[in-house]
Amino acid sequence: MQIVKDNGPITGEHIADRLNLTRATLRPDLAILTMAGYLDARPRVGYFYSGKTGTQLLTENLKKIYVKDYQSIPVVVNENVSVYDAIVTMFLEDVGTLFVVDAGSHLVGVLSRKDLLRASIGKQELTSIPVNIIMTRMPNITTCEKDDLLIDVAKKLIDKQIDALPVVKETEKGFEVFGRITKTNITKAFVALAAEDL
Amino acid sequence: MQIVKDNGPITGEHIADRLNLTRATLRPDLAILTMAGYLDARPRVGYFYSGKTGTQLLTENLKKIYVKDYQSIPVVVNENVSVYDAIVTMFLEDVGTLFVVDAGSHLVGVLSRKDLLRASIGKQELTSIPVNIIMTRMPNITTCEKDDLLIDVAKKLIDKQIDALPVVKETEKGFEVFGRITKTNITKAFVALAAEDL
Repeated sequence: MQIVKDNGPITGEHIADRLNLTRATLRPDLAILTMAGYLDARPRVGYFYSGKTGTQLLTENLKKIYVKDYQSIPVVVNENVSVYDAIVTMFLEDVGTLFVVDAGSHLVGVLSRKDLLRASIGKQELTSIPVNIIMTRMPNITTCEKDDLLIDVAKKLIDKQIDALPVVKETEKGFEVFGRITKTNITKAFVALAAEDL
Repeated sequence: MQIVKDNGPITGEHIADRLNLTRATLRPDLAILTMAGYLDARPRVGYFYSGKTGTQLLTENLKKIYVKDYQSIPVVVNENVSVYDAIVTMFLEDVGTLFVVDAGSHLVGVLSRKDLLRASIGKQELTSIPVNIIMTRMPNITTCEKDDLLIDVAKKLIDKQIDALPVVKETEKGFEVFGRITKTNITKAFVALAAEDL
């Protein structure tokens, strides 16, 4: 690796010369390093250092993790409850995001801790404002489904700058909420990637 | 791979026989599969299927990501500011966690959105309570340093059920705060793992 890093592109013969080995002896090792992606090889040019670090295998692993493997149970409130009651629910259930549903249990809004904190420093009485005044509402809600790749949902969380997504199933009458994916779930998946080795 | 899965443990000669190849021809391929961890080999027994899926390479990758590669800028407030001013700072800076410092700029506390939301539904006037009444204080603050592995910090976030850690440097007079690691940073690292492949 060091010889190729310092001298690449360099032919198999020249590497063998430097190590006092025959080319036949070295061949399997160069094949391994090339196959693993650490070296690149070009016919009639030689071997050179790819700068890669096994990322293809890594990506293969990431593409096997689905939303359903890491989703949490959703906590929902009715659209008519007060902001005060929503805050109490958030503390009792110890979650950072609530999903708001209508009388038919279909998703109509999302409430983050930030939304509730903003409302709480306003001048209005928290027990008299219904959550549907302050919530983020459909169609501005980003959703996901249980068979989505976790990596794609992680991208949505970053791109949209949100903390959580509802895991939904679309029906004729709207979206039913079956789960919740948060940055905590993504962090758990990140930790699990390393723990698989144990 | 399939021959070994179905017949393992099986010797290199027997695999070569089944493929109508010489053992010498097959040797580099078996070396690659063994080196990559897909097959295990035992002297005088033969090759068998390891059941591994490239996780060692994955873990190697994770062990190269440090706090300093993903940390954000910390947002600090003085321990004497009011809870109301802390909430305003949190919105202006658009962060979920504030670090509280004393007159000498050393870390004395942490304020989460949850802490501020809890205070805001209390009966006290938010402009008259200083943050040091409601903050989590030293020595109950979990910290990290810039050269810590991101995976270890992710574990701390999960184990302690917190959203963010200050990145500190210990001095004789206390901890100076240089950065902030949140579940958002971990989610960005998770996304970057997959993006490296592009």
